[in-house]
Amino acid sequence: MKKIVTAAFIIIGDEILSGRTKDENLNFLACALGENGVSLKEARVVPDIEQEIIDAVNAARKKYDYIFTSGGVGTTHDDITIEAIAKAFGDNLVKNEEAANLLASYYGSRLTEIHMKMAYLPSRAKLIENDILSPSGFVVENVFVLAGVPRIFRAMFEGIKKEIVGGAKIKSREIKISLPESSIAKVFADLQKKYPQVIMGSYPSETGASLVFRSAEYEFIDISLEEMVKILQEIDPKSIVATS
Amino acid sequence: MKKIVTAAFIIIGDEILSGRTKDENLNFLACALGENGVSLKEARVVPDIEQEIIDAVNAARKKYDYIFTSGGVGTTHDDITIEAIAKAFGDNLVKNEEAANLLASYYGSRLTEIHMKMAYLPSRAKLIENDILSPSGFVVENVFVLAGVPRIFRAMFEGIKKEIVGGAKIKSREIKISLPESSIAKVFADLQKKYPQVIMGSYPSETGASLVFRSAEYEFIDISLEEMVKILQEIDPKSIVATS
Repeated sequence: MKKIVTAAFIIIGDEILSGRTKDENLNFLACALGENGVSLKEARVVPDIEQEIIDAVNAARKKYDYIFTSGGVGTTHDDITIEAIAKAFGDNLVKNEEAANLLASYYGSRLTEIHMKMAYLPSRAKLIENDILSPSGFVVENVFVLAGVPRIFRAMFEGIKKEIVGGAKIKSREIKISLPESSIAKVFADLQKKYPQVIMGSYPSETGASLVFRSAEYEFIDISLEEMVKILQEIDPKSIVATS
Repeated sequence: MKKIVTAAFIIIGDEILSGRTKDENLNFLACALGENGVSLKEARVVPDIEQEIIDAVNAARKKYDYIFTSGGVGTTHDDITIEAIAKAFGDNLVKNEEAANLLASYYGSRLTEIHMKMAYLPSRAKLIENDILSPSGFVVENVFVLAGVPRIFRAMFEGIKKEIVGGAKIKSREIKISLPESSIAKVFADLQKKYPQVIMGSYPSETGASLVFRSAEYEFIDISLEEMVKILQEIDPKSIVATS
C-alpha cells in the first residue's frame, strides 16, 4: 500500500481575517495537491504577526510532510513572512544571488533598493521557479513560501509541482440523493462500519444530500458505492438523483 | 479606549480540505463580526477527526474571547462535532429538553430516533435561536457551534448576534493606486511609523495596489490617509485611482 502524504496550508493575511479579501487559494491548493497524491490535512489563516506565523509554521512542519504558505512576500512594511520563516528555522536573511539576478533582469534599469529587498531570503532557501519571475517564492526544507495573489500563487505552484513527491491518490465517488440525510443515516453508518477502508461522508444540500466515498483503495469505493445504490433502490428508486 | 474583542473560527470539514466544497462562511463571519465590534484573529480548517477538533477548540477558547465552529452537527456518522465539543469541555451528552421539543414540533409525525439524536447536547449547552429551527446550534461558555451549510450558518449567526458583546469597532479606509507597491514602500513604511495607532497594509492588484488604513481610533485613519494622499499627489497626481 502506498503511503499517505500529508500537507498543511498557512494563509498569512490580516485582509482575509478582516473580511476585506476572500481567500481564493485554499480550494485551488486542496484540489491541486489531491491530483498530485498529497492530502491536505489542515489549513490556517493567521494574522500579520511575526510570532503567530513562526508558531504556526513550526507546529505544522513537524506534523505534516509539506507546508505551503501564502501571502506577505511583497516589498511593503506589512510583508513579514520571509523574516518570520527565517526565524522559524533559526536562520538569517542573506542576499540570494540567484534571486538578485532574476530581479535585475526583470526590472532592468527600473531596479531599486526596495525591489532588491526581495532577494534577501533565508540562507537555506531554494528559489521556486515560475513563469512570472518576480517576486519569487522559495522553499526551506519542507516549507514552500508562495505569494498571496491568486494568479502568482498558481504560477508558483506550477513551478514547485515537480518537487512534491506524492503518495497514494485519494479517489472520490458520489451519490446525489433527493432524501434528507437523516433518512439514510442508519444504513449509511452500517455501510461505513462494513468498509473501514473507505471514508464516507454525507453533505446536506438544499434538495437532499450528497453521499461521498473517498479512499486510496479504489476497488472498495466501487463495491461500497454499489451496495449503497442497492440499498437506496430498495428504499425508493427515485431517491437516486445521480452517481458519479 | 474600548477593549478589542477577539474571535477564532474553526471550520470542521474533510470536504473543505479535499477541495470538494469551497468554504463560504469565513468571509461572511469575518465581515459580520467586524460589524459587531469583534476582530477575527485566526481561522482554522480541521478534518473530521475528534482529537483534532478537541485540540483546536481547547487551544482557541483560552486565547480568544469568542470561538465559532461550523460543520459536523447533522445526523450522519461523520457528524462528530457535538461529541467533540462535549469532550473538549469534559462534559457529557444529555437530552436537551428544549431541543427535543423543537425537533418534535418541527418534524411532527415524521420524527425518528435519528432526528432525536440532534437533541443530545453537552449538559452545559444553551440552544441558539434561529428561524430555521432544525438542526439547532448551541453555545457552551464562549464556544458557538453552528451548522456548515451557509444558509443555516447565517440564520444561526443572526440568532446569536445578541449574545455577543463587541468592543471597539475597527474602521477601514482605502486608497487605490495605479503604481506598483514597491514604488511607495518606503514612504508608506515611514507613515506607518509615524501613526502606530493605524494598521496600514498594502495589497497588490493586477493594476497597482490598495493601501488600507485600519484602526479603532478613527481620527488617526483620516489624518494618516490624507497625509498619504498628499505624498501621492507629489509623486504623481494621476497615481490616485480612488479613495474610500
